[in-house]
Amino acid sequence: MNELLRFLNLRVDLAVEARDLIRGATGQEVPGVEETVEQMEYIKINTINILNEIGAQQMGRPIGTYVTIQSPPLKINDPYVKDEIITAMEKKLPLLFQNMLKPGDTVLLVGLGNWRATADALGPKFIEYSPITRHYHQEAPQALVEGMRPVCGIAPGVLGITGIETFEIIKGVVDRIKPALVIAVDALAAQNVERIGTTIQMSNTGIQPGAGIGNMRHSLTYEGLGVPVIAIGCPTIVNAGIIADQAIRKFCLHSGAMYNETRAVDAIKEVLSFFGGGLGVTPTEIDEIIENASRILAMGVAKSLFPGISEEQLELYAT
Amino acid sequence: MNELLRFLNLRVDLAVEARDLIRGATGQEVPGVEETVEQMEYIKINTINILNEIGAQQMGRPIGTYVTIQSPPLKINDPYVKDEIITAMEKKLPLLFQNMLKPGDTVLLVGLGNWRATADALGPKFIEYSPITRHYHQEAPQALVEGMRPVCGIAPGVLGITGIETFEIIKGVVDRIKPALVIAVDALAAQNVERIGTTIQMSNTGIQPGAGIGNMRHSLTYEGLGVPVIAIGCPTIVNAGIIADQAIRKFCLHSGAMYNETRAVDAIKEVLSFFGGGLGVTPTEIDEIIENASRILAMGVAKSLFPGISEEQLELYAT
Amino acid sequence: MNELLRFLNLRVDLAVEARDLIRGATGQEVPGVEETVEQMEYIKINTINILNEIGAQQMGRPIGTYVTIQSPPLKINDPYVKDEIITAMEKKLPLLFQNMLKPGDTVLLVGLGNWRATADALGPKFIEYSPITRHYHQEAPQALVEGMRPVCGIAPGVLGITGIETFEIIKGVVDRIKPALVIAVDALAAQNVERIGTTIQMSNTGIQPGAGIGNMRHSLTYEGLGVPVIAIGCPTIVNAGIIADQAIRKFCLHSGAMYNETRAVDAIKEVLSFFGGGLGVTPTEIDEIIENASRILAMGVAKSLFPGISEEQLELYAT
Amino acid sequence: MNELLRFLNLRVDLAVEARDLIRGATGQEVPGVEETVEQMEYIKINTINILNEIGAQQMGRPIGTYVTIQSPPLKINDPYVKDEIITAMEKKLPLLFQNMLKPGDTVLLVGLGNWRATADALGPKFIEYSPITRHYHQEAPQALVEGMRPVCGIAPGVLGITGIETFEIIKGVVDRIKPALVIAVDALAAQNVERIGTTIQMSNTGIQPGAGIGNMRHSLTYEGLGVPVIAIGCPTIVNAGIIADQAIRKFCLHSGAMYNETRAVDAIKEVLSFFGGGLGVTPTEIDEIIENASRILAMGVAKSLFPGISEEQLELYAT
Repeated sequence: MNELLRFLNLRVDLAVEARDLIRGATGQEVPGVEETVEQMEYIKINTINILNEIGAQQMGRPIGTYVTIQSPPLKINDPYVKDEIITAMEKKLPLLFQNMLKPGDTVLLVGLGNWRATADALGPKFIEYSPITRHYHQEAPQALVEGMRPVCGIAPGVLGITGIETFEIIKGVVDRIKPALVIAVDALAAQNVERIGTTIQMSNTGIQPGAGIGNMRHSLTYEGLGVPVIAIGCPTIVNAGIIADQAIRKFCLHSGAMYNETRAVDAIKEVLSFFGGGLGVTPTEIDEIIENASRILAMGVAKSLFPGISEEQLELYAT
Repeated sequence: MNELLRFLNLRVDLAVEARDLIRGATGQEVPGVEETVEQMEYIKINTINILNEIGAQQMGRPIGTYVTIQSPPLKINDPYVKDEIITAMEKKLPLLFQNMLKPGDTVLLVGLGNWRATADALGPKFIEYSPITRHYHQEAPQALVEGMRPVCGIAPGVLGITGIETFEIIKGVVDRIKPALVIAVDALAAQNVERIGTTIQMSNTGIQPGAGIGNMRHSLTYEGLGVPVIAIGCPTIVNAGIIADQAIRKFCLHSGAMYNETRAVDAIKEVLSFFGGGLGVTPTEIDEIIENASRILAMGVAKSLFPGISEEQLELYAT
Repeated sequence: MNELLRFLNLRVDLAVEARDLIRGATGQEVPGVEETVEQMEYIKINTINILNEIGAQQMGRPIGTYVTIQSPPLKINDPYVKDEIITAMEKKLPLLFQNMLKPGDTVLLVGLGNWRATADALGPKFIEYSPITRHYHQEAPQALVEGMRPVCGIAPGVLGITGIETFEIIKGVVDRIKPALVIAVDALAAQNVERIGTTIQMSNTGIQPGAGIGNMRHSLTYEGLGVPVIAIGCPTIVNAGIIADQAIRKFCLHSGAMYNETRAVDAIKEVLSFFGGGLGVTPTEIDEIIENASRILAMGVAKSLFPGISEEQLELYAT
Repeated sequence: MNELLRFLNLRVDLAVEARDLIRGATGQEVPGVEETVEQMEYIKINTINILNEIGAQQMGRPIGTYVTIQSPPLKINDPYVKDEIITAMEKKLPLLFQNMLKPGDTVLLVGLGNWRATADALGPKFIEYSPITRHYHQEAPQALVEGMRPVCGIAPGVLGITGIETFEIIKGVVDRIKPALVIAVDALAAQNVERIGTTIQMSNTGIQPGAGIGNMRHSLTYEGLGVPVIAIGCPTIVNAGIIADQAIRKFCLHSGAMYNETRAVDAIKEVLSFFGGGLGVTPTEIDEIIENASRILAMGVAKSLFPGISEEQLELYAT
C-alpha cells in the first residue's frame, strides 16, 4: 500500500484506517496503541489511544486520543441515527478537551476547507450552522441563556482562494482573541468509499501537515497555535487510485493472479495520469451528504460546549 | 465491456466512445457509419454520421449526425481555446439544424439536470448564461438588436425534486409556445476521466431514454415533442467501476495475468457494492469545470442562433 | 390614496389592506363583505368573505374567502409562534379547498417569483422545502407513508429570465399532469412595512393579473387553468412611495399643514423619479425573513395536504 | 438634517454628500476643503481634498483625499461605461497610494460585509472576483506574469456571524503577513436612491468607526493597523427615513407648508418605528447591482495593482 500512497501523494487521515493498514501488514496488535469499541443501538464508537512514541511512529500520527463514530451506511439522514451521533459527540468531546476548558472560557471554531468546492465545504458549513455567542457577552448579555460560554467561529478559506496560508489567518486571530481552545473541522480523505458520510473522527492532537511529519510551528496544533486544538473530520472523498487498487486486489483474489504493488501502481498511473493521480472520487449525492454532516457536527459540538441547553435554543444562535 | 456496463446499469453517452467500444471488439470500421475528423489549432472536431438502420443498431443510437469537439486536457479556461470552441459551435450547430430553423423562428432552450447537485448542474447553468429574447418581441422590441430571433429557456429540474417527469414539463411548454426548435443541454457520463470538461457532443437526434431503445413517445426527440431537438452534452462524471475496470485491464497487461470480464465485474462489485455500483466519480475541480463549460456552451449556442451579433452584446441578454 | 397607487402602478395585494383603504374612505362596513377575527395566543386570524359582486367591486378582487394570519412583529423565528402559524394553516387551508380535494388526489405546488432576486424568492424556496411525493407513487410506493397523496412542485421562474409567460408554463404542466388542485405561493407587496415577514394571506380565488381586472383566460385561476387554485402569499416588499406618503400624512397631522394627495404625489415623484417610482423597499434582514417564511409556508401547506403525518416525517420528503 | 440623522443613527458615508449637507446649511464653500471635478464621456470624477483640521472638523472625516466616480443612472451594465469606470479607477487609485507601494510589495485586499445579506455582500464578492497571486510567489512563480506583485484577499465576515470584531481578524492577519498596503471594500449607505449602483468612493484615509470620531486604535486605518489603508465603497442602501424626509420637504415646497425638522422626525418615527428606524431601502434589482459593481471594483483595483497586464489575463487569477 505504501507505494500506492506515495504515488498518489496521500496521507491516511483516519486513525482507524491507519490501524487497519498496519494490522494488515503484520497481523498483530500495534505496540504503543490501545483501542476500545462501544456498540450503541445504531452507531459504533471506536477509541484509539496512542500511548507513546513507539505507537506514534507506527501510526504515523502524534500521541493522543482518536475517537471515531461510525454510523450505518446511507443512514445519516435518519433522525434516530442523527440523535445517537449527536449524543455520542456530546459525551466524547468533553473527554478530549477535559482539563483544557473551564466554564466561561472562550472557544474558537475553525471551519477548514473551500466553500466553493462542494466536497471541501464541510468546515465552512459547520461554522454556518454553529451557535455563535461571543459578541453577545459584551454587547447584549441579556440575549444569552444563563451559563453560555463565548464561542466564535471563522472559515479561513484555502490558500488557493485567499493567497494566505490557512495557518497564518488562524494564528493571527488566535493571537488577537486568545481563546482557551480551538475546535477545527475539516473534510477528510478515506481509503474506502463506505466511509463517506458515515464516519466522524475527533482527536485532541490538532491537525499536522503531511502525515505528522514536518514543520510543527506552522501546524494547527498546540505547538503551532499556543492553545489546545481539537480536530474533527469526516471523509468526503476517496482517491480514485485507491478504488482502482482495491479492484485489482480483488480481481487477483478471484482469478488467482498474483498481486504486485509496483505493477498495480503502474496500471493506475496510466489510467489516472490525466489528473496527475489526484482524482478525488465523491458520490454524486455529495451535496446532500455535506449538508447533513455539517449540521450534525455543528449540533454535536454545540451540545458539548453548552451543556444543558436544548437543540431548539442552540439553533437560535446559529448565524 | 458489456457485462460491466450492464452491472453498472450504464449507457454510453458519447458516440465517439460507442464507436471506440465497437471498434475495440471488431477492429474494423463500423458499417453504416461515416466519420470525419478536423484538427484545428487547439481542438479536434469529430463528425460521426449514422447513415442507416445497420449503423444505428451497431452504435446503439438513432440515425443522425453527432459532432464532438475535443479540447486539450486542462485547457478549458484558456481564452484562446475557449474562442476556438465557440467558433466551432457557431459553425457546426447550424449544419445540425439547417432546414429546421428560419430567421425569426422561436427556439426553446432546455437545461436538463439538477441545479442542487454540482456535477448535474450543467444544463441549468447553461440557461442562466444564455441570452433570452422572446419576451422583448412583444413587450419591448426596441430593446432588441435588429434581427434577433425569439429565444426562451427553461430548466425543468429532475423527477426527484419536482415529482414530475422532465418530459411532461417540456412537452407542456412546447405545446403552449410552439417553438420551431428545441436545444437541450445535459451533463453526460463518460468512459474516461480525460473527457470531463474537455468534450462537447452535439447531435440532431434529441435525447432517448435508455440507449436509444424504449418508449419514444416520452423522449426528448421529434417523435416525442413534435419539434426537432438538438442535444448538446458534456461529460461531467465517470462511473468508478469503469475506472476500476481500466486499472484491472492495465494491470493484466503489465503483469501478464489473463483479463476475465466476469471476474473483473465480481471484483468491482465487491469494492463498490456500498453505493450499489452507482458511484459517480467527479474530479474535485468539478465546480469550476461546470462553471466554465456552461458559459462556453451558452455562448456557442448563442452565436449560432444570433449570427452576426457580438459576444459583448449577447451577454447583455443573459439573465 | 388612489392617485398615489395609480402613479406607483400598484395593486393592493392584501385583502385586509384593501378593506382598510375602503373603510378609511367611508368609515363604514364594506357592503357584500363579511369579516371574522380570531385571536390566538400569539397570532391573529382574520377571515374576509367577499359574498357577491358588490363586495368584489368594492374590494377590487373576486368573490371568495381570504384568510390572513398575522404574527407579532419580529417574532417569526420564535418556535412557539412558528408552531401556532403552522397549526393555523393546517386548520384553515382545508376550509379553502374543502370539496375540491379527495384523498389520493394529486396537488401541484407552484412557487412563483424569481429565485435570483432575494425578496422575490419566496415561492421558489417554498418549493424547495415542500415534501414532494408524486414520483414515488409509480416508482417506489413502499417509500411512502400510508395515505400520502401525490404532490409535485414547480418554480416556473419569471418572464424576465425564461422569456416565457409564467401562465404558459403552468398551464402546460397542468394540461399534462392534470392535478386536482394548484397551490400557488408568491411574494406580495404591502402598504405597511410592519407586514413584511409577519403576514400570510391564503385565498381560494387564485391570482389575477392587474388587480382583478383583465384577461382571466391567462390568469392563475380556475378560469385560466381549469383546476381550482389556492393562492398563498407573504408581503416581502413595500413601495418606497407608500412610506413617503405615510410620512407626509403624519407630518401634516403633527404640523397642522393640509394634506393634499396631488401635491404629495408630485413630491414623491421628484424623490423617486430615478427608479421610475418602482423602488421596492425591503428591510436589510430580508434574506433571513424569506428563509423563515418559506419554511413555515412549506410546513403549513404540507400539514394540510398530509393530515396526520408528523413534521419530522414530512421533512424527509423535502427535496 | 442633523436631528434626522441622529434619530436614524446614521453617518454620512459619502464625502460628496457630506459636502452637500454643509453647503446646503451655509451656502458657502467649506473652509479647509478643495474640490475638483472632471467630466469624462460618461462618468464624472469628483476629487475632494480635506486639507487641514478645520476641513476635517467640518466634513466629519479625516484629512485626506476622497475621489468619487459617478456614472449615469441605470448604466452600470453598459460595457462602455464599465470600461470608463475601470480606466478611471486605474488612473486615480495610484494617486491615492502613490508613495506607499513599491513594485513587488504585497497588498492585502479586504472585502468587508456579510455575504449572507445581499445588499451587504459587495466586499466579499469583490474578493471573489479579484486576482490573487501571493501564493504563487513561493509555490509556482512560473505561473505568474512577469512583474505581478503578491496580492492576497480575505472576507472577514461581520461580528454577527463570526462573533469576532472585524478589526481583530484583519489586524491578526496584517500582523502575520505584513502587507505594504490594505485595500478595503465595503457597501455604503447613501442619502439619495440615485446613488445606489452609480457611485464609487475611494479614499486614502481608511475606515473610521462612527463618523470619524471614536477609538482610532480599533479602526481600519493606518493608526489601527499599522499599514496604510485605501477605502473603496459603493452605496447599496438608503435609509427609508431619508426618503420620507425628502418627500416631506418637497411636499412643503409644493404646498407652501412650513418644513419643521422636529415634526418631520416625529412623523417618520411613527411610520418606521416598527424597524426601530433602521429600515434600509434597496431597489429590488439589488442582486444584479451588487454583481455588476463587485466585478467592476475588482477589475479597477486589479488594473491599478498590476499595471500593463490585460483584463483577460487578470481574470485567470480570480479565484
